[in-house]
Amino acid sequence: MTFALSESIEVLERTPGTLASFVSGLSDGWLACREGEGTWNVQEVIDHLIEGERHNWMPRLEMMLQDGEPQLFPPFDRFAHLDKQEAAGIQQSLDTFSILRAQNVARLKACITTDELLARKGKHPAFGTVTIKQLLATWVVHDLTHMAQITRVMAKRYQEDVGPWREYLGILQERQGWSAD
Amino acid sequence: MTFALSESIEVLERTPGTLASFVSGLSDGWLACREGEGTWNVQEVIDHLIEGERHNWMPRLEMMLQDGEPQLFPPFDRFAHLDKQEAAGIQQSLDTFSILRAQNVARLKACITTDELLARKGKHPAFGTVTIKQLLATWVVHDLTHMAQITRVMAKRYQEDVGPWREYLGILQERQGWSAD
Repeated sequence: MTFALSESIEVLERTPGTLASFVSGLSDGWLACREGEGTWNVQEVIDHLIEGERHNWMPRLEMMLQDGEPQLFPPFDRFAHLDKQEAAGIQQSLDTFSILRAQNVARLKACITTDELLARKGKHPAFGTVTIKQLLATWVVHDLTHMAQITRVMAKRYQEDVGPWREYLGILQERQGWSAD
Repeated sequence: MTFALSESIEVLERTPGTLASFVSGLSDGWLACREGEGTWNVQEVIDHLIEGERHNWMPRLEMMLQDGEPQLFPPFDRFAHLDKQEAAGIQQSLDTFSILRAQNVARLKACITTDELLARKGKHPAFGTVTIKQLLATWVVHDLTHMAQITRVMAKRYQEDVGPWREYLGILQERQGWSAD
């Protein structure tokens, strides 16, 4: 096990700025492209991250901090963002994500004040007992997964244009791997 | 085919700032981790990108712009950076990459002034005739590949810590896919 709260926060804090550096101002060709039917474009990935800030990570963590028997997490709909797309475009989504993430990292720092609290438990609807440490490690890996997804979706846009180099570029053969909720 | 020079430049220009946002100031645990023996850590990926700026993309492109029969590219050693690691650490590597990339994008803009030039040809040592368009598309996908690699390497560091969420996180099952030279 390698988890450390401070190192997890390093990643969580960097994700909004990294995404802003990467996709802010990109032309529509990059922002709209998909790996295929039913997969997400860049905007949809960011909107999914926003949903997680609002309804997944910190709400679950705060449930786990309550005294008493571990409670079952309310379901998280990983497709919810597709129904209520942030209307104002990519820059608005990036800004919203950045604000929510900063608030959530501040809440996280305020409520996890000892390593003992990382062992507090909750009940995941699919696989039962989980700990706060596992939730936080998953939050970090979930960020990394969706950054990788954005690079993969964009890379595939040029899968024909690279010509014979295609066989050297493993990213063009990768499929969408589902990410955690 | 979807390639457009201006859109390619959008990505090439963003990569150094994106990497700086993401990895600058990370603790050694993140910077030193690997997927396994013989794979690259974050520092080594950035040093490989530096090698590409110096010896791969623009030198090949400029060969292809010369008149006469297409010439064979000089070999590019994708492991060269492991022998001459940038000694001053990650921040120095990020800065070097940023400077070299900015210079190369300026050279690119100065020398590819018409779409016709994208059809100029060169000879790749492994698969023969390639065009400037294919080289530029590959440069973009190569950037994206290595950004995805960094996120994957970091994600795997927490593959045990995520506990039962592991089965939802496709990134933890992905292997290193070689990237183009």
